[in-house]
Amino acid sequence: MKLQHATWQEVEDYLQRASGIIIPIGSTEQHGPNGLLGTDAICPESVAWELGARHDVLVGPTQSIGMAQHHLAFPGSISLRPSTLIAVLRDTVTSLVRHGFTHVFFLNGHGGNIATVNAAFAEIYSGRSLRSDGQSSGALHLALNNWFAGPRVRELAQSLYGDAEGGHATASEVSLSWFARPEAVKDVAMSPRIAPSGSAQCDAEEFRRRFPDGRMGSDPSLSRIEHGERFQAAAVEDTWDAYRAFLGEGLQ
Amino acid sequence: MKLQHATWQEVEDYLQRASGIIIPIGSTEQHGPNGLLGTDAICPESVAWELGARHDVLVGPTQSIGMAQHHLAFPGSISLRPSTLIAVLRDTVTSLVRHGFTHVFFLNGHGGNIATVNAAFAEIYSGRSLRSDGQSSGALHLALNNWFAGPRVRELAQSLYGDAEGGHATASEVSLSWFARPEAVKDVAMSPRIAPSGSAQCDAEEFRRRFPDGRMGSDPSLSRIEHGERFQAAAVEDTWDAYRAFLGEGLQ
Amino acid sequence: MKLQHATWQEVEDYLQRASGIIIPIGSTEQHGPNGLLGTDAICPESVAWELGARHDVLVGPTQSIGMAQHHLAFPGSISLRPSTLIAVLRDTVTSLVRHGFTHVFFLNGHGGNIATVNAAFAEIYSGRSLRSDGQSSGALHLALNNWFAGPRVRELAQSLYGDAEGGHATASEVSLSWFARPEAVKDVAMSPRIAPSGSAQCDAEEFRRRFPDGRMGSDPSLSRIEHGERFQAAAVEDTWDAYRAFLGEGLQ
Amino acid sequence: MKLQHATWQEVEDYLQRASGIIIPIGSTEQHGPNGLLGTDAICPESVAWELGARHDVLVGPTQSIGMAQHHLAFPGSISLRPSTLIAVLRDTVTSLVRHGFTHVFFLNGHGGNIATVNAAFAEIYSGRSLRSDGQSSGALHLALNNWFAGPRVRELAQSLYGDAEGGHATASEVSLSWFARPEAVKDVAMSPRIAPSGSAQCDAEEFRRRFPDGRMGSDPSLSRIEHGERFQAAAVEDTWDAYRAFLGEGLQ
Amino acid sequence: MKLQHATWQEVEDYLQRASGIIIPIGSTEQHGPNGLLGTDAICPESVAWELGARHDVLVGPTQSIGMAQHHLAFPGSISLRPSTLIAVLRDTVTSLVRHGFTHVFFLNGHGGNIATVNAAFAEIYSGRSLRSDGQSSGALHLALNNWFAGPRVRELAQSLYGDAEGGHATASEVSLSWFARPEAVKDVAMSPRIAPSGSAQCDAEEFRRRFPDGRMGSDPSLSRIEHGERFQAAAVEDTWDAYRAFLGEGLQ
Amino acid sequence: MKLQHATWQEVEDYLQRASGIIIPIGSTEQHGPNGLLGTDAICPESVAWELGARHDVLVGPTQSIGMAQHHLAFPGSISLRPSTLIAVLRDTVTSLVRHGFTHVFFLNGHGGNIATVNAAFAEIYSGRSLRSDGQSSGALHLALNNWFAGPRVRELAQSLYGDAEGGHATASEVSLSWFARPEAVKDVAMSPRIAPSGSAQCDAEEFRRRFPDGRMGSDPSLSRIEHGERFQAAAVEDTWDAYRAFLGEGLQ
Repeated sequence: MKLQHATWQEVEDYLQRASGIIIPIGSTEQHGPNGLLGTDAICPESVAWELGARHDVLVGPTQSIGMAQHHLAFPGSISLRPSTLIAVLRDTVTSLVRHGFTHVFFLNGHGGNIATVNAAFAEIYSGRSLRSDGQSSGALHLALNNWFAGPRVRELAQSLYGDAEGGHATASEVSLSWFARPEAVKDVAMSPRIAPSGSAQCDAEEFRRRFPDGRMGSDPSLSRIEHGERFQAAAVEDTWDAYRAFLGEGLQ
Repeated sequence: MKLQHATWQEVEDYLQRASGIIIPIGSTEQHGPNGLLGTDAICPESVAWELGARHDVLVGPTQSIGMAQHHLAFPGSISLRPSTLIAVLRDTVTSLVRHGFTHVFFLNGHGGNIATVNAAFAEIYSGRSLRSDGQSSGALHLALNNWFAGPRVRELAQSLYGDAEGGHATASEVSLSWFARPEAVKDVAMSPRIAPSGSAQCDAEEFRRRFPDGRMGSDPSLSRIEHGERFQAAAVEDTWDAYRAFLGEGLQ
Repeated sequence: MKLQHATWQEVEDYLQRASGIIIPIGSTEQHGPNGLLGTDAICPESVAWELGARHDVLVGPTQSIGMAQHHLAFPGSISLRPSTLIAVLRDTVTSLVRHGFTHVFFLNGHGGNIATVNAAFAEIYSGRSLRSDGQSSGALHLALNNWFAGPRVRELAQSLYGDAEGGHATASEVSLSWFARPEAVKDVAMSPRIAPSGSAQCDAEEFRRRFPDGRMGSDPSLSRIEHGERFQAAAVEDTWDAYRAFLGEGLQ
Repeated sequence: MKLQHATWQEVEDYLQRASGIIIPIGSTEQHGPNGLLGTDAICPESVAWELGARHDVLVGPTQSIGMAQHHLAFPGSISLRPSTLIAVLRDTVTSLVRHGFTHVFFLNGHGGNIATVNAAFAEIYSGRSLRSDGQSSGALHLALNNWFAGPRVRELAQSLYGDAEGGHATASEVSLSWFARPEAVKDVAMSPRIAPSGSAQCDAEEFRRRFPDGRMGSDPSLSRIEHGERFQAAAVEDTWDAYRAFLGEGLQ
Repeated sequence: MKLQHATWQEVEDYLQRASGIIIPIGSTEQHGPNGLLGTDAICPESVAWELGARHDVLVGPTQSIGMAQHHLAFPGSISLRPSTLIAVLRDTVTSLVRHGFTHVFFLNGHGGNIATVNAAFAEIYSGRSLRSDGQSSGALHLALNNWFAGPRVRELAQSLYGDAEGGHATASEVSLSWFARPEAVKDVAMSPRIAPSGSAQCDAEEFRRRFPDGRMGSDPSLSRIEHGERFQAAAVEDTWDAYRAFLGEGLQ
Repeated sequence: MKLQHATWQEVEDYLQRASGIIIPIGSTEQHGPNGLLGTDAICPESVAWELGARHDVLVGPTQSIGMAQHHLAFPGSISLRPSTLIAVLRDTVTSLVRHGFTHVFFLNGHGGNIATVNAAFAEIYSGRSLRSDGQSSGALHLALNNWFAGPRVRELAQSLYGDAEGGHATASEVSLSWFARPEAVKDVAMSPRIAPSGSAQCDAEEFRRRFPDGRMGSDPSLSRIEHGERFQAAAVEDTWDAYRAFLGEGLQ
């Protein structure tokens, strides 16, 4: 069930039987010569929508823009400052808590979001932990799950690409985005075949100096729609395991 | 052309021949008994994507969450504080300006966003106007356009619904959202047929007191997918007129 | 009754019989060759003080600086960023709510404030709507009323100036400011007689390029003190109607 | 010369011959049984306007609301948080610097503003001092001057009231405000004659517990309009000395 | 007792018998040719630790970085913006209040911190004073005490150095820091012997222009470890008096 | 070389031959029954000071308070919100960049800081990456290194404690803090011997519910001063390797 396609009464009904929600979060940033700017949002959204189709779980609106400052030297990249993204996540979670949601599960498609999303969780919890008025705030469970880091997905990427998988603009994410958006497949040659590796801890100008076409250690010319279908299946299973474990938190 | 489906090189090429972009902006908020929580994002997105399909204009990622504090007493509504949304728009525009965009056109689906988006524009311009270092910042044109307020759309709504159109959860927006998402059509009876009218200038509890099922002055049971198709056509024409006029700004 | 001229006990007494307050809000910005930098504050202050003299209504301190970033290329203009003005209004309203005020009516003299003031209202309401601790916050009614937009004022401006009224540094506001501050009347020739028209949605440098002497579409050489007296009378009546209607909110 | 009563061309002319400005800053807060809520703004405004009448010095718009959190348990008091007031002063000074002002002199009427105004100066200077791009920002001189702390004013208060002057809602400030606003004189008995003394470093509830009628160590029943006239004369001389010394800064 | 060297159970026990804490706060900034960058943190820390050794009082972690924007043109100086330091102190005090501390006593070593720390206190109190939900927040006492301004310290500095004490990088603070850190004594000649005097109300470039080697009006070549020992003794006594008086607040 | 014990001229000299700095960062938070509240600051400080003693590397002032919201239900814990800590690190790095430092290496003692420190790095880089004025900002290298995560330290902890090492209030960190502060060794029995394990992703109340005496999966009764000496030696070597590799960044 997609929150965007539900009425408020349908959400009200859902809250009678559940209090968890999955929110896809990605980024709008360059993904090398043949990867889509929306890759990091499209991938977790595709996985989350499939989960919403198979199971009785609500899927919230995709946060399409993330923390991508290091990609800003490539046209089309859009970035929120960490402080801005923290405010967005705080308001989003606070809105959901008001309705009675107790488990908010962010399904993430962008490594560059991880620190900021975790800092946002700490900011949200700080508001509760710094209260001294003796009022209990009730339970709030927050999770960040990376679709690309589950065991089935990792294994599949290793078996298909080995060391050519790399760290950014990888064949696995390009494949999944193509499966989700077959109308946007690109045919672009890579040179060198495998991009240079290194750290992304730097500003945008330095990043482009280190990684001239945007890829990090990857060869996304290996991407295939049919691979994407297999990544989708693997990610759906990995994520469902993680989500169910997350729902169990606080139940012991 | 959708930015989310483009590579960075495709955006680089686009910037050789154009410097404008359309960004859909909506809200995630209750839309009465038969309207989707995503209505205000789905409508401008649908119009913008059609423009991107017909014309050589880039369409950015949809901002699906807006300023919807007054709807928060209805489950599923998610709101950003005005200060948060201002930060989001500031970072988005700043990212685009870095790439060379000079005309950013927000196509809006939510009346509640108007004040905050205009305040965000003023915040962005303030950063330039308060500089005293003598450096020119270059031209920056920002526009907010409401898909529901163009002349063809207004006329169509009047001819189809007259006074039953109302102000929130209107038959026109519900029709357009159903046209864009036919899988999400709902069949719900309205009681009373036309909802009470009044001001939305209040907090969430007071809003729900004033408008018990979320509608404001509307009868969205009149909504039809085929109406939505006509609204889409009208809005595409209205918006294209507005966008071309906007591009002309600063060219005299 | 002016709050600035009252003791706290007098305000305490007032709150026994009323819970509304009028707060003039303006701007400090260029108003063309013969208009005062304080025009936008002086006009609503003059109207509000007359209301306070005639009726049992408390008038708060004038907010003399507003959002005027687009005027900053003209010497003497002072602007608050929207985020700053939002904070000012939030703290002002919060202070008043603490004392028991339930209806805060901002009488505005500057079109450029409108978006930011409405965003400030939404920011204030967001603080209440995002609470999830089940505590009722009590009613809070906020209104923004433009002295220059009431029916009697509009009609008078039309009858006196027709199309020469324009959009900024208008003869109507200059007349009213001169009536309120006769010691500050200026005699300056206008060239061209009617200033160019256009949009003020831009930064300060661009604004000055579009509107070289600061006027927008107006001929303020038509201004007269005696016109100002008539605008004062019309605005007092328009505003009193609006204020009484506002007080009725929430009483049904 | 009052900035509020000048045109932008008059300010442009002034900047040809001077680059200093005086800005009155006060507070809106209880001043005991017979003192006006606006006392702290009215007093420095009255002194500054007289300076503007006598000398070729520009006087900016009065900042009528200050940092008055400790007075909020008394009806009518309005307070800005320190962080808000810092933003207001930062934007005000930044606006003036854009026009070429180099010496901004705040004439203050409220002890509770002192720490925050000095913190605001440090915030403004921090923006310049933390720059590392090698660009010189040009000279900027900022001063905070308390009208009530000059030598002539101190001496006069001592000679008129001795120990009954006290620390808040003093006879000296009440006298000056009455001189400036004779229509607002109040006749109220004090009990006890001299209010209790103590520290104002506390929150609003605690302040009211310590100082039940709002006065701190004072007997403002001694206030007289004719005293106010003498305080005005003394403050005008004290302030003019201070302002001229301030203008000399950076000239050595 | 040092909080940093205690377990949480030891603090829990302490809170059974006391609710006050001393927190040293300083700065990291140039202190002229022979003064340590850490002088302003080392001095109050040394005094506070001695108090913690002699008396049953808890001493919190030293805030080593303060507001030092004017010193940033000298290598090694580190400064927090006032707005940042306000947030640090707000979070620190809020954490302590949660545990039951009611008296927080900042022992300060840096004149440049005074305005910002007092503004931080006002920001903290504002959060309580602006509440309108009728909930009492309980007593909170905050004090700022400068180790260098107590009567015994002032007298000792006068007797040892007279006018050569000066205002920054003084012989008294250098002596105390050397007593606390004898391994860091420097032997540097001063030229001129007594540094120029003036105001530090300016940005970093201007400060360095006014005070070329960083000293203000002082001759720190007079510093001696044995003087430092006497300053330590004097400051311990001055501070203990001040702390005990502070604890008495609210007990009447 | 400790920055706190250096003069500004000594730092100026250092910058002639180096441009890197090590800054210890920790937390003030409960560390179970026998661990010090200052453990997380004391450990990296001890390692950094030893590095500063052995090598020509500057060590900045320790940031003793970190992000510790989850520990706030244990007396003595002090936490900065992520947004506050981000501001502190931004100002600290900006100060250092002004002086010419290009490599800032944070030596961290607290797992709870990791997300926020990385978000702070992204916030700092965002300021550079979002600039569109074509000015190069110069290279800036930022690193976060956890003393407890180096290979020698990991191996030593495994060999000494195996599974009893745990995740918070570990024997390794308690041992190192005791080595650094032998006067603060505590003798406290543990019950149960090994604390429960789990996630710290929650607010303070929930954390205390999960981990009643503050430990996570550890048995710190195994701590010994002599172990601490070995951890210090291992961490010094691990960190020096990491620091030298970091300095090499950008040199290729």
